[in-house]
Amino acid sequence: MIRVVLLGGGNLAFHLAKAMQKSARIDLVQIYNRSEIYYPFLENSTHYTERLSDLMPADIYVICVSDNAVEELANSLNINNVIVVHTSGNLAMNVLSKHKRTGVLYPVQSFSKGTAVDFKRIPICIEASNEQDEILLLTLAQELSEHCTVLSSEKRQQLHLAAVFVNNFVNHLYHIADTLCQQNQISFDLLRPLINTTVAKIMDLTPYDAQTGPARRNDSNTIEAHLELLDIEQQHLYQSLTQSIQKTYGNQL
Amino acid sequence: MIRVVLLGGGNLAFHLAKAMQKSARIDLVQIYNRSEIYYPFLENSTHYTERLSDLMPADIYVICVSDNAVEELANSLNINNVIVVHTSGNLAMNVLSKHKRTGVLYPVQSFSKGTAVDFKRIPICIEASNEQDEILLLTLAQELSEHCTVLSSEKRQQLHLAAVFVNNFVNHLYHIADTLCQQNQISFDLLRPLINTTVAKIMDLTPYDAQTGPARRNDSNTIEAHLELLDIEQQHLYQSLTQSIQKTYGNQL
Repeated sequence: MIRVVLLGGGNLAFHLAKAMQKSARIDLVQIYNRSEIYYPFLENSTHYTERLSDLMPADIYVICVSDNAVEELANSLNINNVIVVHTSGNLAMNVLSKHKRTGVLYPVQSFSKGTAVDFKRIPICIEASNEQDEILLLTLAQELSEHCTVLSSEKRQQLHLAAVFVNNFVNHLYHIADTLCQQNQISFDLLRPLINTTVAKIMDLTPYDAQTGPARRNDSNTIEAHLELLDIEQQHLYQSLTQSIQKTYGNQL
Repeated sequence: MIRVVLLGGGNLAFHLAKAMQKSARIDLVQIYNRSEIYYPFLENSTHYTERLSDLMPADIYVICVSDNAVEELANSLNINNVIVVHTSGNLAMNVLSKHKRTGVLYPVQSFSKGTAVDFKRIPICIEASNEQDEILLLTLAQELSEHCTVLSSEKRQQLHLAAVFVNNFVNHLYHIADTLCQQNQISFDLLRPLINTTVAKIMDLTPYDAQTGPARRNDSNTIEAHLELLDIEQQHLYQSLTQSIQKTYGNQL
């Protein structure tokens, strides 16, 4: 059994606790959170605490709090010879450097409490400060997911940045399209099949090869017509994206 | 029976011909294309021609060529009292104004020849120059798809612009993420579950409410760290998108 203490009460902590509960090889000993929480899906064997001084013995302490609170929380932990890991995509492992044995367990996913998650399908990137702990973390991660990879802090930061493009930035483009639809009393539902096709296409093609549209084919008439329909903010974004596409393919001429 | 002549041999013409073939109420009389084409899935009753002078009688002529060729092709048609429609999202109906009876049949989808398409699920937006032809076009569209809407040229252009954001621009963001992964020897597959979740989320939430990430929460440390990992072109795009997100939510404070 791998004994785990979870520190945090946000969306990731919630889904991690749920996934750990399902594994026969993980003993979720305790959950620490600043304020009171209760997860009804957990068995009685899991303890809760709001005090760092009451932390119980375990093999791994998993910190699931927001990026800007990780280092302070890690520095507040008075533990010896236990591996301390964080779950952030963006933070280097060395923010935990107060401790001797450190690691990272980063699930590449965006979590919200209301949405069910199949943790088995979520890629998990791990990193550890020594080889033996890497094996321990990999064992833990493989209990949670079928897609586990060892990744350095540098690569993990690059991956997290790429994730911002495909998640946060893509969602913002959906928002702009939604705004255009609303302003013109058009149902956003008209765009849903196209949204799905755009994602489905890159299962077969690279995004480079899948690119279509006025910017790709240098169709300046359509680009001009589009710009006239947008407000100044939207124009700025449209032009940045169009220029970026044109540079991507212009270089290939 | 609605008798149709298709003009064009591109991806849309291919998929339209296939969908029309499946309807018992559509008679695909003839396909015109500048160069020779042959669709093995069509029955022998469909004729082919490469000469506009050989066009056969029909109820509807459907132009499926690239935007910049539509007007010229329409002007070359010597027909009387037949409705002429184009299939472009971006062109106004009046590019067909040489003819008395005109219309538009715009499927909101991006087509490629290799990918199978369930036309029944593709939204089709129609427009016609008179009420009776609107009914005729709606009847035709409803034979092809379960999601048909009457939409003016102005609204259709706005919808097409919104489609550029959710399709062409989103795909370009996938390309940038793919580039970051390749440059750092990271598998793009690590991002696929996140890409799917991003799309799945906006089935339940508006994109406005679904927004997360460093720009949304004004996390300047992460934004600075990200910018240092990007080249100048990527930085420019990252900043445009970040500023657009910040303005979207800053206005709400």
